[in-house]
Order: sequence, then C-alpha cells, then structure tokens
Amino acid sequence: MILPRSSPAVRPERLAGVRKVEVRAGEVTILATPMISEDGLLQPGELGLPQPAFRRLGVRPGDPVHVAPARSPRTLEAVRAKIAGASLTPDDYEAITGDLAAHRWSDMEIAAFLVACAAFMTPEEVLSLTKAMVTAGRRLSWNRDLVVDKHCIGGIPGNRTTLIVTPIVAAHGLTMPKTSSRAITSPAGTADTMEVFARVDLSEAEMRQVVETCGACVSWGGRVNLSPADDVLISVERPLSIDTPEQMVASIVSKKLAAGSTHLVLDVPVGPTAKVRDRRQALRLKKLFEYVADGTGLSIEVLLTDAIEPIGRGVGPVLEARDVTAVLENRADAPEDLREKSIRLAGRVLEVDPALRGGAGERRARELLESGAAAEKMAQICEAQGASPLKNATGDLIHEVRAAGSGRVAAIDCLRIATIARLAGAPTDPGAGLELLRKTGETVRTGEPLYRIYGSEISDFGFACEATGEDPGVRIES
Amino acid sequence: MILPRSSPAVRPERLAGVRKVEVRAGEVTILATPMISEDGLLQPGELGLPQPAFRRLGVRPGDPVHVAPARSPRTLEAVRAKIAGASLTPDDYEAITGDLAAHRWSDMEIAAFLVACAAFMTPEEVLSLTKAMVTAGRRLSWNRDLVVDKHCIGGIPGNRTTLIVTPIVAAHGLTMPKTSSRAITSPAGTADTMEVFARVDLSEAEMRQVVETCGACVSWGGRVNLSPADDVLISVERPLSIDTPEQMVASIVSKKLAAGSTHLVLDVPVGPTAKVRDRRQALRLKKLFEYVADGTGLSIEVLLTDAIEPIGRGVGPVLEARDVTAVLENRADAPEDLREKSIRLAGRVLEVDPALRGGAGERRARELLESGAAAEKMAQICEAQGASPLKNATGDLIHEVRAAGSGRVAAIDCLRIATIARLAGAPTDPGAGLELLRKTGETVRTGEPLYRIYGSEISDFGFACEATGEDPGVRIES
Repeated sequence: MILPRSSPAVRPERLAGVRKVEVRAGEVTILATPMISEDGLLQPGELGLPQPAFRRLGVRPGDPVHVAPARSPRTLEAVRAKIAGASLTPDDYEAITGDLAAHRWSDMEIAAFLVACAAFMTPEEVLSLTKAMVTAGRRLSWNRDLVVDKHCIGGIPGNRTTLIVTPIVAAHGLTMPKTSSRAITSPAGTADTMEVFARVDLSEAEMRQVVETCGACVSWGGRVNLSPADDVLISVERPLSIDTPEQMVASIVSKKLAAGSTHLVLDVPVGPTAKVRDRRQALRLKKLFEYVADGTGLSIEVLLTDAIEPIGRGVGPVLEARDVTAVLENRADAPEDLREKSIRLAGRVLEVDPALRGGAGERRARELLESGAAAEKMAQICEAQGASPLKNATGDLIHEVRAAGSGRVAAIDCLRIATIARLAGAPTDPGAGLELLRKTGETVRTGEPLYRIYGSEISDFGFACEATGEDPGVRIES
Repeated sequence: MILPRSSPAVRPERLAGVRKVEVRAGEVTILATPMISEDGLLQPGELGLPQPAFRRLGVRPGDPVHVAPARSPRTLEAVRAKIAGASLTPDDYEAITGDLAAHRWSDMEIAAFLVACAAFMTPEEVLSLTKAMVTAGRRLSWNRDLVVDKHCIGGIPGNRTTLIVTPIVAAHGLTMPKTSSRAITSPAGTADTMEVFARVDLSEAEMRQVVETCGACVSWGGRVNLSPADDVLISVERPLSIDTPEQMVASIVSKKLAAGSTHLVLDVPVGPTAKVRDRRQALRLKKLFEYVADGTGLSIEVLLTDAIEPIGRGVGPVLEARDVTAVLENRADAPEDLREKSIRLAGRVLEVDPALRGGAGERRARELLESGAAAEKMAQICEAQGASPLKNATGDLIHEVRAAGSGRVAAIDCLRIATIARLAGAPTDPGAGLELLRKTGETVRTGEPLYRIYGSEISDFGFACEATGEDPGVRIES
C-alpha cells in the first residue's frame, strides 16, 4: 500500500523497516506493507492499495477504510521455532494456515516457513498441515458415494495424461470433478494445457454445472479458492522453485479432500531426471502419501511409473494440447507413450467402480478411447466449460537444436528440457515450449534436428537458445 | 517500482507473478519488482521508484532510466541446492555475496537463503561466506600495527560495555575505530545507544577524522557501508528475527576485518535466557569464531561471561545511556555489574598492548575509569562525532510493573525483558524501554514495583503492558 508522507492515519516515520499496517473494511482486515509517497499524488486522507487488496477487502476506489499499525502475527513465533528445529503441533499448523489464508504473513515470512519445513517435517506434522489446510478452506460435496480423481506429482514434461484419463473415466460413467493446478516449477500444469482447449477458471457454480452435464470437468483449482492457505504457499513456492515432498503431499491431499474426492490414483514418475530419482525415495514418498491419505479418510492408490524422458512430443501448453488431441482422435502419429500411460492410469481409476472386474479396467479404458467415446466426452466437457481465451498457436520464433554427433538417443533430461521450455516463456506464453523430434532409442545423425524451440518474446527466446548451447539435455551414444 | 498499465518499456501482462525488471542508469543496474498502476497517475513513459532505488541508481525525479525484463540470478540455483541440503563452495559464496551486495535478490529469496543456512552450514562454509563478504565490500586501513576492537554477540539487555570500554582503551592510547550495529532483534544496539550521546552515521572521512583526533570512535557501521552483503542479509534477518550462530560469526568477523581491526576481544554471555544457553553451546560457538578468525587472519580472544539477568538498570537507548553516564562519572548509584564487566573487558583489550604486563590490564582499566580519563575521552569522542539528533528523554507514558508476591528476585528473563522493551517501541523510539528497579538477589514485597515501562506511542505501550500480564519476566522466590 502507498501512504502519503502527510497521512494522519499512521505517522509514517514510525513505519520505516519492520512495520505493517492493518487495513480494515467492515469485517475484513488485511495486512499491508506501507510505502511512503513524497510527491503529493495522494491527499493526506487517501491511500493507495494494489488490486488484490481491493478484491480481498471488497472495496472500490473512494470507499472508506480503517488503518492502524499492526502487531506481528503470533504464528511467526512458531515459524521461528521451526527454523530452530522444533516440531510443531496440530494447533500450530491450524493457526498458521489460518493466518496464511487471511494473508497475514509477508512473502518473506512465508519463504522462511517453507524453507524451514524443507529442512524436516515429521509425518505427523505433514498430516497436521494437511488437515489444517482443509480446515482453512471449504470442501465441496457431490452427493455421490464415489468421486474419483487422478493426479501426477509432476516433473515429467509433456505428461498430460489427465486430459485423456478424465474423458475416458467420465465416458464410463464415474464422477470426476477434476481441479488442476497451473505450473509451479514446470513449463505447463494440467490447467495451463487444458486452457488451450477451454476456459478453466470456472467458479464453483460453473464447475457444478459442467459436472452435472458431463460427469466430469477439468478446471483450475485456484479460481474456486478451496484451499486458500495452499494457494498462498504456492504463490511463494513458485518464484522460489521450492517443491519439497512434504509440501507436495500436504498440498495434493488437501486439495483432493477439498474437492470432495473419495478415491485418488496417484502417478509418481521415477527416473534419473524426474522429481523422484530412485526407488527408495519413491517408496518413502508413497508411504508418506498413504499415511496422510489414511489419516484424512482419502482412499489412495500410488503408482510408481518409469520416467526416462518426457512423455509425448510437445512441452508447453499449446504443444502438449496437440499431443492430447492426436491421442483422443486415435491418429496414427499420436505419441504412443502418452496413449499407453493414459490407458494404464484410466484403467486403475475405472476399477474403483465395484461393477468392474478386478484387472478389467485397462481393457475397458482402451475400448472407450478407441471407440471415440472419450473424444466425444472431451468435446462435451470443453463445450460446457466455454471457449478458451488463448490463441491455439505456437510461437513464431523457432530454433532447431541439432545433434552434435551420430548415434542412438540414450536419454533425455526431463529437468533440462523443462528449464529450456520455461526459459522460452512457457507457461506464461502458452505457445512457447519445445517439440521433441527424437525420443530415446531412436537413431540420429550429426546435424539432424533433435527438437525445436518455440517462443514469441525475443529476450526469453534468446535465453532458451543460449541454454541449449551449455547443455541441450539430449544424450547421444555412438 | 510502479509501472503504468500503458508502459511501452515492458509489456505489463508479461509481468504478472514471478517477473522482475532491471532498471539501469549509467553503470548501475538494480532489480525491481514491478507493480502495475491502472489509474493514469503515471504517463506511458514514466515509472515510479522507491527512495532507496533513487539513491542506489544515483538518479533524481525526471532522469531517464533503461528498463528491461530481468533474468533470475544464477546464484538462486545455489540457494536451491542449499535448501536441498548441499554444502556450497567458496565460489558459490563469492557469487552470492556479489549478488546480495548488488541487490539482485528479493527479500523472499534472501529469507529462503538465510533459513536454508540456518538448517546447517559447515565451518568451511562459514569461512567461505565470511571471506566472500569481505571481498564484496571495502576494507579500511589505519596504517597501524595494532587496531583493537571489542564486541558482544548481544542478547543481554542493557549490556552497553562498549561505550565504557572504548573511551578507556582510547585513553590508554590504543587505536579503536569502533563500528557498531543497530539492533537486529534486541531493544537497542550499541549504535542506537551511542546515538543518544552523539551522531553515529559518520561517513568514512568523518570516522577517520574522529579517530585521528581521539584515537577512537563509536560509529554506525551501516553508513560506512563496508559490508554491503551483510547489510542486505541483516535487512531481512531483522524483521524475521533470525539470528543463527553461523550468520553471526560471518557477520561479526567480516565486519571487523572490513573495519581494519587486527585484534578482537569477544564477549559471549552464557545463561538460561541469553542467546547462548549453556557451556556446550558456548564452546561450540567459541570454536567456530576461532576457526573463522584464524582462517581470515584476525586475532581473537573469546570470553564466556555469566548472564543471569540484564546488565545495568536501563533497557532501551535513552535508559541505557543513563547507566553509561553514571559509570563514566563514577557516580555512587552507577550499576556495579555494568562497571565491573566493562573493566574486565577493557582489561583484556588493553593487554593487546605489548608494553602492558600480562594480567595488568584490569588494574590499568580501573585506573583510567576512576581518574576521569575515560569520561574525558568519551566527551572528546562525542564532540568530535557531532551533536545527537535524538531527544535525550524517556517516553512520557509510564507503567510500573509490581510484584505479585513477596520474596527474593531469583531470575530476570533477558528474552522476556527484551521483548517487552521492543513492544514498548525500543529502539525505533529511543525513549521507550524499561528501567529495572530490582535485580536478582534483592528482596521485594507484594505490590512493590519491579520495573517501569516507558513509551510514547499508545498502541505500542498497550502491547508492552499487556505482555507483562502474561509473563512479567521476573521470577520471585518466597
């Protein structure tokens, strides 16, 4: 917020450095960091607020607000204890998520909390945080015994199985009100790619309408604001690129509970350049998910999947959407890895249906995909959600990265590919990203293209191209 | 910084969330987080910057600057590695302090780095960080073989020995160009209390002038800006109240080296409510100080001192300054603990003088204090530094905290007393703080006053008084 030097509401000389200010309108109070304006733009009785503050306070320009110096939130003492190595209690976590949801912490304080949690959290603490996140938000209810969901922990570029699994599952008749996230540290989240097909920022009422009509939706969870504490944490995790197992478990399980899910199939890709590097790490994460899901009443099935390269050919919202379309339309050139993985996952979700024989899920999923039922369902969902606000076009700057030697593609580095796609501008720029022209096992000769980078912003594009010079992310063995 | 929605310099729709902007004027580039203004206050070609940015860029309103989207600093990858539990190399620390000194990190990123370091740093890392901090700044040179210093790690309210030790040492003829810090988490730093007597924001030239004339000074280190990386770290440690041993060692040793000191006597108070709780912790800290000082060529003597209560009677700049004056003037009512501790410390510093017999320092220190030579030297230093900008008066709001029972004062909680004094407004309000009327070992009867709280801002004062209701910080045994 901006206060004029002459403001009578708070003496600005007291505000230097550490102080925060409470701004209150009716029942709503927010904390703001004051900045002092010297130049007479504001009158003594005025103050300037950023747009999100207007929304949170529910006020319009010119409306009166109350202003007072604020006391530091008590929960920061718990953060200090955590930094010093303490375990926090369920009550601590409840108080913390309450303050987070009410925007009482600064970004600096949130960063300190996240990094302190990154050092260690006990499974009990992760359970406490998860429950507290659910308590701090709202919980949808669907009046059905079975509400299924499928989720991937991420880290594998191009892994857009959700957009194939959801229509398959809905075509079978199960209810799958899918809320997805936008990218945190990746070049595209499911919501980012879905947005190429349709609107994703559905309100709760709109989401209900779509699920009523289609049995499923794929909307962005942030608009529904079910888990405000998690959203605040993610707003800091994102620029810092922090993504710890503990925050991941708390975030995913709380969001599923908030969305009213009863059953979750969770995809955990394991590979040398994935988020989860080896089987030991994967099993530890699986146990943590199971512990927290059991403690909160969510049925979970955790699948460890092999990850040695990106899934599909496109990386970035528009390029990934093309792969999804190719699979749904049963096109001959559709990426086989994306199709087979989607069928496998959909099969596991379908087996939540008591009417389906154990082991019969995968055949049923394949049937629904090959018959065109899934494609039809996807079209129905997209129409119900509304037209996409995005241009379904790749960036007009293109750079081909070529092989420095001949041989067999031995590995493609997921992390490196993700970094290059992000540098190119994905996901902020939906048409940015890259398209893999060779996958592992294929052969390539010196000078032949390995992948294409797409972008539309010259400085970003330059960073991405420059990065491929250091390390293109594709290892070729002769 | 504030950009109008219509700015052509950067497309504001690209700036949502994570992006930062580089602002360049001549050779100087700073990073700024853009905020978008909707209301036409700024013209398309204008932007708004906060005062510190004007100073750093060396520009005035209306001057032209260049603006471009910024790439995230590479050093943030080292921060992520640190969060994930890695040890960083000397090169990493050099790159980090360079970016810190150049203000390339956001507060959120600095907080993440500090908390990651709080989890663990090897002694080698602390040494690397210390050296890198010195490299990132400037180093004063005094053309003398012996340049002495005395420092306390803090945590004990009222412990203003520096303001007594410095004039004693200078009266003996040693050179002591003392730079002190303002409070980080305490109710007063040495610089805050010195400011009650004289100006402390001396430029380097002014500091040299004072040391030339008097042999010593007590100035605020921040103005000289010797260790810009440390100053940036402290600007985040302060609001977060983070104060780890590793950051403490790096900060203190680098500042002493930057100030050109050759010998340091370091006071480490040890007690149940001090920063260092027990002897084991104290010895570990002592070893770390010795390791880092040895590795950087600073002669150090670490003294572990007993701390069971605040030193002196006053807590807060003005109230502490009164204690200092009473000791220097050899007044009968001067706090004995402050006098004796100062003499002990001054004695150790004096023994750096090769002409002084081992063990003779303390007697010499007492002689210089009792003869009035130290008081005279202090007056000379204060005159040379210039008149204080502060009003030497306690706050006009006074609250007496009374004993709930009769008995002997068994303990006074340093942390609690510091918290109450800070809540009352110290050190921002120099006249705020508290005055202890009873110290440990003294007897008190129900209803008799234990201490007085001073303040001048009603809301702060209310918080402080309220806090004494929960826990006044004084334990009475009947």
